[in-house]
Amino acid sequence: MKAVVFENYKTFPTIKEVEKPTPGPGEVLLKVAGAGCCHSDVSVFHDYTPETGTHTKPPFILGHETSGWIEELGPGVTGFNKGDAYLVYGPTGCGHCQRCVAGEENYCENMATNESLAIGLGRDGGMAEYAVVPARNLVPLGDADPIAAAPLSDAGLTPYHAIKAALPHLRGGGKYALVIGLGGLGQIAIQLLKALTGATIIGTDMKPESMAKAEEQGVITVPSDENEVARIREITSGRGVDAAFDFVGIAPTIAAAQAASGIGSRVTIVGIAGGKGEFDWYTNPWEQELTSAYWGSMSELHEVAALYRQGLVTPEVETYSMDDALVAYHNLVDGKLTKRAVVVPHMGE
Amino acid sequence: MKAVVFENYKTFPTIKEVEKPTPGPGEVLLKVAGAGCCHSDVSVFHDYTPETGTHTKPPFILGHETSGWIEELGPGVTGFNKGDAYLVYGPTGCGHCQRCVAGEENYCENMATNESLAIGLGRDGGMAEYAVVPARNLVPLGDADPIAAAPLSDAGLTPYHAIKAALPHLRGGGKYALVIGLGGLGQIAIQLLKALTGATIIGTDMKPESMAKAEEQGVITVPSDENEVARIREITSGRGVDAAFDFVGIAPTIAAAQAASGIGSRVTIVGIAGGKGEFDWYTNPWEQELTSAYWGSMSELHEVAALYRQGLVTPEVETYSMDDALVAYHNLVDGKLTKRAVVVPHMGE
Amino acid sequence: MKAVVFENYKTFPTIKEVEKPTPGPGEVLLKVAGAGCCHSDVSVFHDYTPETGTHTKPPFILGHETSGWIEELGPGVTGFNKGDAYLVYGPTGCGHCQRCVAGEENYCENMATNESLAIGLGRDGGMAEYAVVPARNLVPLGDADPIAAAPLSDAGLTPYHAIKAALPHLRGGGKYALVIGLGGLGQIAIQLLKALTGATIIGTDMKPESMAKAEEQGVITVPSDENEVARIREITSGRGVDAAFDFVGIAPTIAAAQAASGIGSRVTIVGIAGGKGEFDWYTNPWEQELTSAYWGSMSELHEVAALYRQGLVTPEVETYSMDDALVAYHNLVDGKLTKRAVVVPHMGE
Amino acid sequence: MKAVVFENYKTFPTIKEVEKPTPGPGEVLLKVAGAGCCHSDVSVFHDYTPETGTHTKPPFILGHETSGWIEELGPGVTGFNKGDAYLVYGPTGCGHCQRCVAGEENYCENMATNESLAIGLGRDGGMAEYAVVPARNLVPLGDADPIAAAPLSDAGLTPYHAIKAALPHLRGGGKYALVIGLGGLGQIAIQLLKALTGATIIGTDMKPESMAKAEEQGVITVPSDENEVARIREITSGRGVDAAFDFVGIAPTIAAAQAASGIGSRVTIVGIAGGKGEFDWYTNPWEQELTSAYWGSMSELHEVAALYRQGLVTPEVETYSMDDALVAYHNLVDGKLTKRAVVVPHMGE
Repeated sequence: MKAVVFENYKTFPTIKEVEKPTPGPGEVLLKVAGAGCCHSDVSVFHDYTPETGTHTKPPFILGHETSGWIEELGPGVTGFNKGDAYLVYGPTGCGHCQRCVAGEENYCENMATNESLAIGLGRDGGMAEYAVVPARNLVPLGDADPIAAAPLSDAGLTPYHAIKAALPHLRGGGKYALVIGLGGLGQIAIQLLKALTGATIIGTDMKPESMAKAEEQGVITVPSDENEVARIREITSGRGVDAAFDFVGIAPTIAAAQAASGIGSRVTIVGIAGGKGEFDWYTNPWEQELTSAYWGSMSELHEVAALYRQGLVTPEVETYSMDDALVAYHNLVDGKLTKRAVVVPHMGE
Repeated sequence: MKAVVFENYKTFPTIKEVEKPTPGPGEVLLKVAGAGCCHSDVSVFHDYTPETGTHTKPPFILGHETSGWIEELGPGVTGFNKGDAYLVYGPTGCGHCQRCVAGEENYCENMATNESLAIGLGRDGGMAEYAVVPARNLVPLGDADPIAAAPLSDAGLTPYHAIKAALPHLRGGGKYALVIGLGGLGQIAIQLLKALTGATIIGTDMKPESMAKAEEQGVITVPSDENEVARIREITSGRGVDAAFDFVGIAPTIAAAQAASGIGSRVTIVGIAGGKGEFDWYTNPWEQELTSAYWGSMSELHEVAALYRQGLVTPEVETYSMDDALVAYHNLVDGKLTKRAVVVPHMGE
Repeated sequence: MKAVVFENYKTFPTIKEVEKPTPGPGEVLLKVAGAGCCHSDVSVFHDYTPETGTHTKPPFILGHETSGWIEELGPGVTGFNKGDAYLVYGPTGCGHCQRCVAGEENYCENMATNESLAIGLGRDGGMAEYAVVPARNLVPLGDADPIAAAPLSDAGLTPYHAIKAALPHLRGGGKYALVIGLGGLGQIAIQLLKALTGATIIGTDMKPESMAKAEEQGVITVPSDENEVARIREITSGRGVDAAFDFVGIAPTIAAAQAASGIGSRVTIVGIAGGKGEFDWYTNPWEQELTSAYWGSMSELHEVAALYRQGLVTPEVETYSMDDALVAYHNLVDGKLTKRAVVVPHMGE
Repeated sequence: MKAVVFENYKTFPTIKEVEKPTPGPGEVLLKVAGAGCCHSDVSVFHDYTPETGTHTKPPFILGHETSGWIEELGPGVTGFNKGDAYLVYGPTGCGHCQRCVAGEENYCENMATNESLAIGLGRDGGMAEYAVVPARNLVPLGDADPIAAAPLSDAGLTPYHAIKAALPHLRGGGKYALVIGLGGLGQIAIQLLKALTGATIIGTDMKPESMAKAEEQGVITVPSDENEVARIREITSGRGVDAAFDFVGIAPTIAAAQAASGIGSRVTIVGIAGGKGEFDWYTNPWEQELTSAYWGSMSELHEVAALYRQGLVTPEVETYSMDDALVAYHNLVDGKLTKRAVVVPHMGE
């Protein structure tokens, strides 16, 4: 079968013919419906070295945002029907620490000694005609379109997890949420905040077209400039927002998120640009929580899938055939994508 | 000034000329915008006796759902401007027990020794041209219409409180909420659930017109008959709903709410019809919580007002002049109202 | 190897020579340290019929409270060392529903189609020289004694789960907890409440020796008679307790638990005697939650083991050799046990 | 009567004869039992200027940690008996914003326009023979000693509030809490953590005698040096603590608290030394919350008083007569106190 393989550090992936895998005990073989192209993949093949990429050691098949149809069950696997559509939870921890047994494999306590981070990140992923995954990583999609669902595995689950942790701050009437960065994840965050809370949503970005798209969702937009914080304070009657989500993650956006958020608020750094936030008893609002988030839990992916099946969250995707998979990555690297690129190996079948 | 006075147990109220009150220390005089007619008033003047109505001893002015404009500040009151519109929190507890200092005066620990339950329930309420209320019971309405706001004090706050307590059960994607009884409070509950959660809402009633109104809000309706539970189980893939709110409160509706709710769900009896629920380790889903709710807290009324100001909750009202106030109560008693009746003492001014 | 086998409905178990099992993929072979005798076992072999015991179909080896040392790893299992001591989580659900992936296999959504409830309840358990269990069901015990740990799997986890769900009600100073029934689980509940909360603990029972044992733990005891509720109300300044745990579960104990608990309290039926509780808007304190609990989650068993390793919870046990295993069950049936009976297959080795 | 008066910025307080105050509506006159000397007072009279001390404008009577006996009730105050002992909640906000009606007057939304911060901080406090306070700020002490209780108003409530907000992180078995700075508040924090959680407590300080005192409470101590973080990681099996409380608040202690705390932990800066913390997606554990805390709520002071009455938290105090009140402040400034100084105006009566 064809697969998009990351073959060496600092090397663009290639499309190769590889052997179709066989599911082992506890695993299933999926016929892949869609596999999303993620910025993290670019870090993996473009930036990482043997030193920094210890958990994503080449070679392996890319694709940590995968969906597909059951093709074959490994030994001992029951409770699944051939042809049913599933979304794949990516992280694969040790499976038996306290985090893993609660389905938080993204926070496995034995991560240091794990070989890989996730399906498609260290072990073979979904950017291929077929993929083998652990049965327990499957989340049912029912009748919903599996292709547009693929990005939910990461681009949906990551903002979902950050928002869910902040829900106690957004519980009830009269709350405000701030979304910084209105790109792919920011737009999904808006859909999720609308679905899960009654909060008034404020969004900031520098691109007018991203702001326009957010406004169509009912978001109050504020251009990301030197007046940003003052305007948000004004909108919130001086109190500041109750929860802020920074999908950029550079020092200025983190500082703006904090300054625009009130007493007892929660400021979550989701974007991985690596900026530093500062915290000071005197200058930050009391009990403001400055925190971060990374991916999400198995149980949460079930909840994301439920929202998708209800039509409450819908990733915007553009599809590529397997032969065009590298075009998709090139477009991603070149900043040419306005939607999430999803590779569809069986397009037209 | 004119006022609607409850003068004696088992006696219909009368419209009387009474003295315009003067605000004492910590109090304000409100020019009344609206005062809602509530079923509880009917219990007070129709059913209660000196034995059962110890906290609602006549005579007093009715009206525990009140809004108005600041007319005069009592000694020591600051931070308010004449003419500004406010909603009034009804319950008035001892003011210094642990519940009262947290704004939960509905659950005052010294209720047994309090003379009255609330403004308009034991002490003079808002069904008059002017009313005196404690300054801390005021909730700002800003530019929003104070007349339609009046019912929020009880008909809004009561379902809000029940729903807020259930929010942990409705947190996240893929949740289901059940509303039993689609009358006034049930319809507001639907608005609140839509505003605060991403839950799929199921509603049951026996009246087709109430069901039709709920369907316009996107609610899945199920007729309240012997197949009700089976249909709700079917809609929820067998799992049952995550939270149920029974606005009727008779034994069959409570039993239906329980049977239609799943493991770890919350079933709240809000309707005060006095039915008994049963609970059994073997036949009720594990960890299902069977509970009740009564009115709400001061802080929660601030949140309800915020939702109203955002346009997310809007009580349907029909207005009556002060001279027609008794007509409003008669229509309520006779079941002729389809909207909440609000007495507007300064109508046409 | 020797094993205690439940061979037929309504039939006392027997000790038999059976083949030593072999761990399959994802499983481990444990050399059993201890296996607790539980009242549920008695229900299984004494009361159940083909109709009621569908999930516990004979024959199988008993023992759902098991601990042991790793003897052999099945294919694909890593991260464990031979000889290390582990406690075994009993429930075994489908493994891939939303409950199971969160480690709540006790509440598996596909329970209806599962063959067995748990290790030792439908599938072979720990009352044998060796046992095969899924690797992810193992909870590390470190240097702590594995024999006294065995009962924690159920007699520890069950009250722990009920208490953990009630912790929000017991959060902070000035709270009261009520334990009804001061037998084995009740005594462990007392240890857990002392470890996890600052609540004043009140205990009720009819046996003076059980009350004396609770008093040694600092518990305020109240004899279970007609004055019980009045005395608890008096101790709590009239407010009632914040959380009650009924380890008996007959109608009068449930009613007493409710009457002794205050506004917003949580009353959990843990005992499976099958009594019915009643709930009424007018006569039960507002927002009192009447609920039940069944076993617990994988993650919670990790927490129970941590408390055991800290010395904060210590089951009282009496040990029996494999040859005396049936004596243990006879003593249990005859009410002769004052401590938890643990069968120790390798006693004296 | 005699009172300790802060008369001018940058000026040591003086003992003066002032008029005994009269309670207004909603207020009570307390005969003062005890008034604690707090480091914040030193900031007020030693450091603040007309610019920085806008909410603590002289002259006023000091004392924001006050207890006393009811001497006289102001107009309209009911529900109190002369001679009963009460603790005084300090903060006094606007009284009608959403925070104030929930008893969180420390976080009043109208703080900017309030004249004073609190009783004894901007308005007359308890360091006098008598004090007038709002009735709703009173917390009953029952039969417990009111003198040793006085410091609870701040030195008890401040750590209590920080700990209560962190309780969800310390819920259940196997949790670790870190206390940095084992002075007065740190020692009370230890008592509170022992009372409210089952967490293993780790304490760090540079003074051997403070560490010894903590060890007597069962705390594992780690000297505050360059190996501190490594040792705490070792104690917690590499995972780090679940909640850290920094009672110092300089940059190195904040950094140590963060480095010693794990994924999803909560790090609270309580000490007001003004150090800056940093937060970075890559180097801080995911979902670690970096936050601060300031004083607490009315309802929480009721809970602190309950713990005191149970004997679970006991401030260590040394008492001073009114004539020696300035000695107490001098000892505080000079670092000569090992216990909390409490001025007892009616000593020996």
